Order: sequence, then structure tokens, then C-alpha cells
Amino acid sequence: MVLPLLTRLDHVGIACRDLRRAIDMYRETFGLGVLSLEENEEQGVREAMLAVGPTGAGPGSLGVGYIQLLEPLSPDTPVGRFIARRGEGIHHVGYGVANIEEALATVAGTGIRLVDERPRHGSLGASIAFLHPADLGGVLTEFVQSPSLA
Amino acid sequence: MVLPLLTRLDHVGIACRDLRRAIDMYRETFGLGVLSLEENEEQGVREAMLAVGPTGAGPGSLGVGYIQLLEPLSPDTPVGRFIARRGEGIHHVGYGVANIEEALATVAGTGIRLVDERPRHGSLGASIAFLHPADLGGVLTEFVQSPSLA
Repeated sequence: MVLPLLTRLDHVGIACRDLRRAIDMYRETFGLGVLSLEENEEQGVREAMLAVGPTGAGPGSLGVGYIQLLEPLSPDTPVGRFIARRGEGIHHVGYGVANIEEALATVAGTGIRLVDERPRHGSLGASIAFLHPADLGGVLTEFVQSPSLA
Repeated sequence: MVLPLLTRLDHVGIACRDLRRAIDMYRETFGLGVLSLEENEEQGVREAMLAVGPTGAGPGSLGVGYIQLLEPLSPDTPVGRFIARRGEGIHHVGYGVANIEEALATVAGTGIRLVDERPRHGSLGASIAFLHPADLGGVLTEFVQSPSLA
């Protein structure tokens, strides 16, 4: 295994019914601002990235963690089904990796099933891929390779 | 509001039925090592902290994020009831704050209900307090003031 496989705690993905309301709540309660707003049709979400901690550094920098707010584009999407089943709340955790192709091959070699065999387009220009929660103690886990590290 | 209220994404708390098995899984899959093992009777958990990212720096340092694995000491504890209701998985998210008393007063002033009116003893010598998920989009949220920042 190439160590460290995980370079940082990148973000926590949070499922919400109303993105605008969730953004307002994080701003009013914690003073967090929106770094990016994107619609990702492939994943069926409208999403916002909010930076936690020092914001001078760019995406993928040490010390910058994110909250990713996810509103489903329709009930018939992964996040829509998550909310129908469990309500709003924490949906997944994302870790930084230096090389996502290598990281996927490494964990696949330990028997973990991959949701995404190949990296996909994620927030802030990152390459991302999900691992199967059933093999990881119920935790939907995401790898994130930031463009600055590509 | 004192900005930034949140200084970093500190940790993700993960509920598991068997702490030893969960520790083994994170070591074998991701190469993560255990930084501390503690039993917290007040919170009804046996827990392990695993560092993600550079481990040379101390707790509370920028760039160090944690996974906190939580095994309930009995079914009749908050984490035990969480697992009975929803199964193993992500339980809460913890954010660093510079001054936990001030942070609690600030969010209480915005109408968020506090689970802990006063800070309690948490992992790695930190002072911690939980905020109510019903007021935060279903997300059980924790403030963490690390001893190095005290």
C-alpha cells in the first residue's frame, strides 16, 4: 500500500431538501460562505461547497475542509432516496487522495467493492469516486483528487 | 459573530458494533493507525481516534483530521440506540472552535438548541459539546476545542 493513502479529511456530504435553506442556515449559524454552486446531472444533485477553516488556500490544500450540501434533483436519485429513507442528514465522507486511480486499485485489492470503477467529475474540478458502504461499516466513502494535485 | 467560528473540519464520528473490527478495517483498507483508545462512560462509548493526513502535527493542528470510531458500551446509550435505529454508519461531524464557551453562546444566540449547555470531556483531552440535530438539518454537530488551543 502507498502510504498515506488518505491525505486529508476533505469533506462531509450532507443531504438536504432545500439547498437555499441549508446554505442560509450554515451562513447564519456558523458564518460559512459558499465557495461554489454546481448542478451535477450525472449524480442527480444540486450542490454547494462551503469551506471550513482558512479560506486563503486553494482546494485540496491542507487545513481546508468542506461541507458539501446536496439537494436531490428529483426523488428518484441516490440522494433523493436517501432522504426518503432516512431524512436529511450526513450522507457521506470524502477523503483526499494523491492519485485516485492508484487509490481505487489499492482498496479494490483489499476486497472493498467500488461504486465507481473509474473516477468521475466532482465538485471544484476534482476527480472523485465512491466506495461501497456495505464493505465499509455502513459509511459511504468518497475519494477526492483535487485538480491542484493532479 | 466572531469569525471564523469554525476553525477546521475536525473529525467524523462513526458508530460501529465492534471497535476492534472497525479499527482493523480502517488499517487494512486505508493504512490508518490508532492515535488513542479511550472509554468514555459519560457518553457510553468505547472509542478510537485515527488520524487522516500528516500525523507529525499535534491534535487541533491544521491539516490533521480524524476518524472517531464509536462502539456503544450498551444498547441503552445514544450510540447504541443510533445503531439499533439506523445501523452502523456516520454518527456526527465535529468542527474545531477556538473558544468553545464563546462558540456555544454564539450559536445559542441564533436559536440553535444545545445538547450540552456546558463543555464536556472529549477525546484527546479536548473540550467538546454537541448541538441539536433537529435544528441543523438532521446533522448531529459537535464543537471541539483542542487542548493545544486552550
